Amino acid sequence: MGFAIGVDLGGTNLRIAAVTEDGQLLEKVTTGTQVSRGREAVVSEMAAAIQALATKYHGGSNFLGVGIGVPGIIDKRTGMLRESPNLPGWDDYPVRDDLEHRLKTPVILENDANAAALGENWLGAAKGMDDMCMITLGTGVGGGIVLRGRIWHGMTGMAGELGHITIDPNGPKCGCGNYGCVEVFASATAIVRMAREAIATGDAPALAALAESRDVEFSAKAVNNLALQGDKPAEEIFRKVGWSLGILLADMVNAFNLHMYVIGGGVSAAWPSFSTALFDEIFKRCMVYAATAPDEVRGIRAGASADLRPLPSGKKTIITRALLGSDAGLYGAARLPLLGVEMDERRHVPVFKAE
Amino acid sequence: MGFAIGVDLGGTNLRIAAVTEDGQLLEKVTTGTQVSRGREAVVSEMAAAIQALATKYHGGSNFLGVGIGVPGIIDKRTGMLRESPNLPGWDDYPVRDDLEHRLKTPVILENDANAAALGENWLGAAKGMDDMCMITLGTGVGGGIVLRGRIWHGMTGMAGELGHITIDPNGPKCGCGNYGCVEVFASATAIVRMAREAIATGDAPALAALAESRDVEFSAKAVNNLALQGDKPAEEIFRKVGWSLGILLADMVNAFNLHMYVIGGGVSAAWPSFSTALFDEIFKRCMVYAATAPDEVRGIRAGASADLRPLPSGKKTIITRALLGSDAGLYGAARLPLLGVEMDERRHVPVFKAE
Repeated sequence: MGFAIGVDLGGTNLRIAAVTEDGQLLEKVTTGTQVSRGREAVVSEMAAAIQALATKYHGGSNFLGVGIGVPGIIDKRTGMLRESPNLPGWDDYPVRDDLEHRLKTPVILENDANAAALGENWLGAAKGMDDMCMITLGTGVGGGIVLRGRIWHGMTGMAGELGHITIDPNGPKCGCGNYGCVEVFASATAIVRMAREAIATGDAPALAALAESRDVEFSAKAVNNLALQGDKPAEEIFRKVGWSLGILLADMVNAFNLHMYVIGGGVSAAWPSFSTALFDEIFKRCMVYAATAPDEVRGIRAGASADLRPLPSGKKTIITRALLGSDAGLYGAARLPLLGVEMDERRHVPVFKAE
Repeated sequence: MGFAIGVDLGGTNLRIAAVTEDGQLLEKVTTGTQVSRGREAVVSEMAAAIQALATKYHGGSNFLGVGIGVPGIIDKRTGMLRESPNLPGWDDYPVRDDLEHRLKTPVILENDANAAALGENWLGAAKGMDDMCMITLGTGVGGGIVLRGRIWHGMTGMAGELGHITIDPNGPKCGCGNYGCVEVFASATAIVRMAREAIATGDAPALAALAESRDVEFSAKAVNNLALQGDKPAEEIFRKVGWSLGILLADMVNAFNLHMYVIGGGVSAAWPSFSTALFDEIFKRCMVYAATAPDEVRGIRAGASADLRPLPSGKKTIITRALLGSDAGLYGAARLPLLGVEMDERRHVPVFKAE
């Protein structure tokens, strides 16, 4: 039985896990190193922590490599970060090659949303599915698409940018340059913005009180707490979240026709507040979904059910919450060296595969 | 050298072509049989015409099978049509099995938009590309996605329904149940509707004259002729076509990040009238496109170019017109038996492959 090491370089701390080929967690460590201390400190401590885990478990198991999930744009070919707002100073630094040199083992870089999709596909909500898609709702909105058990990267590694699919072409401007994309409706940032907009109307007293509170942070989570208590303006914000995700998922069902779509990330904790609007919207807008919706979704949409002609094959389109929480990206990163690397991702470098 | 026979069952007539493995057209026939004469007449004449072509060319070449492109929803597993508005009476009839029985040769059914994508991928604008997407603008809007040289069918064969991707969630209602999908902005039907809407405003005298003309049909083509003559309301309609396609393509670049997107179908003849709006829109809305746009597109968008950081890899996202016209689907159909069939498309039937 071999094992691999996954690294999550995404948050404020560095998280590292050793995972066996069959998905058993051997050990998970969070290093004290803060990403804000800079590249050299992070790389040194990361290499040391990986080496320590690799040495510890190498006795019984065969060490198969390292996968690293990183927020931002990765050049798969060169193994560099092209752009990563959370990792200043890492641009155009050969992180993969440097780590391979230090560790003498294969290292694979991956976008964090792609790594999360792979993690949920390996051990989470989409376990055992050949094809799936994951949408990660955090500060921004990320996406990852797994086809035939592997991440679909596209021509330049930028496939799965689902946060920037257009929902309303006249909607609010996004940092990406687009207007009305998913990220301006369904991210934690968007929820806080919509809450401020609601306060500005003068008709959202509970949200206004929250904004003025010194005890509670004015966050997407706090807005959701108000929605769960029945505050109408807060509920309306999460209906908008669900509406935008319903349109996104309708588009993704029309484009990919996958068996499973998984929604994860911190904002997915608000599933009870946005999922009804999500299912309402996709049911109305997507014939393929309406014909393949599971019975329990069909049941709660009784008004629309007269139009439906379920597929005789019994195949269902499943839209569900992620199961692994913030570990999805960590497990997904560990999965990367176990899958091996396709030649088109690493030109001029021999293919290696886990045996 | 083997050959295959492709059938286009889509229009008013039946079109059949024999094509060699390397894409040389041996012969193309259009039978007198009109689809409106009903299923039995069509199937008999189709079988006879296929048999005649197969016999004629079987001397020098090895006959490898038949592919049929059909408008509508196909059950790949059973080889039946589930729904095809243009072929009344064909629902739940085992067209594949019946033809295989009559011809003693493998028959593969495919959606016509998928077949067109495969045709352009084999011999047209996307020749030799592993991955591409085609959007077919006709009475409706169809799509086909080719990944690793094969049509991506998805779970129930409904992938690539790009005509029903949402462009404006508050737009006009589509026959599919959705509002504001591509088809209500970029199909021939939509162009005629938008022309009637323009006439209703009272500010489109040339379109009004066209609608009242006894000599010229009030069609998308006639509206385009007015646009080409500089009629402002007609130009505005094609700007809307380009706007909607630009948003669709931005979504498809964000989702798939493919090397090439091909626009075909009858309405694609109006490319000069809608392409500027298309490129304007995708350039504004899609960072991935802006970073991978070919120089000639970048050049005409000088206003936006300051924001761009081209990818060092030099990889380009190409958006272009189809090359094969109405033959795309015919060639694509002939390509189907040459690619062989994957097991998941045909359970319990042995895989056959062209040698």
